[in-house]
Amino acid sequence: MSQLLVVGSVAFDSVETPYGKREKILGGSANFFSISASFFTPVRMVGVVGNDFPAKHVEVLNARGVDTEGLQWKDGETFHWSGWYGDDLNQAHTLDTRLNVFETFSPELPNSYKDSSTIFLANIDPELQLQVLEQVPKPRLVACDTMNFWISGKRQALLKLLKKVDMFVLNEQEIRDLSGEKNLLSAVEWIREQGPQIIVVKLGEYGAMLFTKEATSWAPAFPLEHVRDPTGAGDTFAGGAIGYLSQVDDINESHLRRALAIGSVMASFNVERFSFDNLLQIKPEDIQERYEKLRKMVSFEDGPLPIRSL
Amino acid sequence: MSQLLVVGSVAFDSVETPYGKREKILGGSANFFSISASFFTPVRMVGVVGNDFPAKHVEVLNARGVDTEGLQWKDGETFHWSGWYGDDLNQAHTLDTRLNVFETFSPELPNSYKDSSTIFLANIDPELQLQVLEQVPKPRLVACDTMNFWISGKRQALLKLLKKVDMFVLNEQEIRDLSGEKNLLSAVEWIREQGPQIIVVKLGEYGAMLFTKEATSWAPAFPLEHVRDPTGAGDTFAGGAIGYLSQVDDINESHLRRALAIGSVMASFNVERFSFDNLLQIKPEDIQERYEKLRKMVSFEDGPLPIRSL
Repeated sequence: MSQLLVVGSVAFDSVETPYGKREKILGGSANFFSISASFFTPVRMVGVVGNDFPAKHVEVLNARGVDTEGLQWKDGETFHWSGWYGDDLNQAHTLDTRLNVFETFSPELPNSYKDSSTIFLANIDPELQLQVLEQVPKPRLVACDTMNFWISGKRQALLKLLKKVDMFVLNEQEIRDLSGEKNLLSAVEWIREQGPQIIVVKLGEYGAMLFTKEATSWAPAFPLEHVRDPTGAGDTFAGGAIGYLSQVDDINESHLRRALAIGSVMASFNVERFSFDNLLQIKPEDIQERYEKLRKMVSFEDGPLPIRSL
Repeated sequence: MSQLLVVGSVAFDSVETPYGKREKILGGSANFFSISASFFTPVRMVGVVGNDFPAKHVEVLNARGVDTEGLQWKDGETFHWSGWYGDDLNQAHTLDTRLNVFETFSPELPNSYKDSSTIFLANIDPELQLQVLEQVPKPRLVACDTMNFWISGKRQALLKLLKKVDMFVLNEQEIRDLSGEKNLLSAVEWIREQGPQIIVVKLGEYGAMLFTKEATSWAPAFPLEHVRDPTGAGDTFAGGAIGYLSQVDDINESHLRRALAIGSVMASFNVERFSFDNLLQIKPEDIQERYEKLRKMVSFEDGPLPIRSL
């Protein structure tokens, strides 16, 4: 069985959306990723928290097969992000970012993590993402995320990292900014030349696309009556997709396409409620049911169309 | 065989996009719809042109099985729209709208059109859309489009029209403005209560969704390396979808979903070049090939997912 490792943030979020307001709820990319991926595989988590972090949450993670040996505890406060969303829930507005113990984070892997075969480098400084990779000798699949802050501020480190990355997960604006290409297919081609051969472009409420040399895939977003808090959607998506991929024998087109749809389904559960409120209460049959609905939404009948010759 | 009728504009467009500039090229909703639909069925066109309209273009339409008996020729100039698109090709900016002979357009159907069974009411004054419907006693499927100008300016006439419409085709902003609902599913529910039981929401570069009481479908847009002019994409989409539907025995979910994908494919050809430059040169096999590619892009394997019980 493949061993899945994630490095990223473990955080408190204070969030306001048109549907409510929450103070210091649990968040962070490593957290969203792990809880989502735990539906498909055990996970090894690398991150840092302060001594204000609730032990109870760590118990929740452990109970789901998330190994927290790589979670560092430091004197001080846990990373705390505050922000809000307006009617356009695709757009997060940051009010305050207190890095706290995350500011001096240096990812050190326990020995027991070093045989990890699948790695997800969530959105952190690309120099730290590289530092993690250096500690894992033989990964089968390396995936990473990033953000505009690193695209503009640490471009060289990011490009160095990309040479070692198989699967790059980013959003539309990020891929355009990094590549300098307006057309999505041209941007994807540019990224491919930097290293990653699997490129996932997250489209928010429009789903996500996946590009390989051989094929293009698209999973729509699952249509929802209530989107209450989009925080963590991207990492929940990645957790579902990469959690699934870490368990398949062969990273082929069929599995990649399935991973894309699973990611979309997992993200849909996440955004329906704040923090992990929904992810921690859904059942395997809920995931299966939504996957089947998504599959049917885009199932077009095969065979010749009745096209006239003109 | 079902008889398909379209009423809409036949126009000259002067268009500038980041990829070029064209003066007084052929356009208009009835034109885009008809040329697209002609790949699937003969079409009956209702519209108005001035005596500056090129007879050669009418010959092109006739050669494709588009009946122009319902095309009125008036003294004066043909409707002329001028506009431009910036990098966001989803957003048209109007520079000038000269209605010319279209200003006093009163759709009168030739007797030979009155047994039409499928009708597409392209985006014109809802009072004129109603006037067309009154002349066709027994349609099987009535579809219509609209725009913000009528949503705010002729709301009552539009709501009166919708009671007689089976299939409503509109974009995201329009459905939100008309319904007053921000959530798409709530907006769709609101529209359904006004009459139309088939609701198609066009998402521009993200494809289109189709809602019935029973199911939701989504066709992505076909990814393109070159989008040169999005003018007419919505009507070309409608032409493909409704042209196909006019020929099927039964308007069921399977055919509706196929229609959605066909619409997306037809629109993708349209936007690759200006005016009808691409639509008039593609072959049946081009349509079939792109449909198959679109189908594969969203083909997710059936069967149980390897979900852990937690």
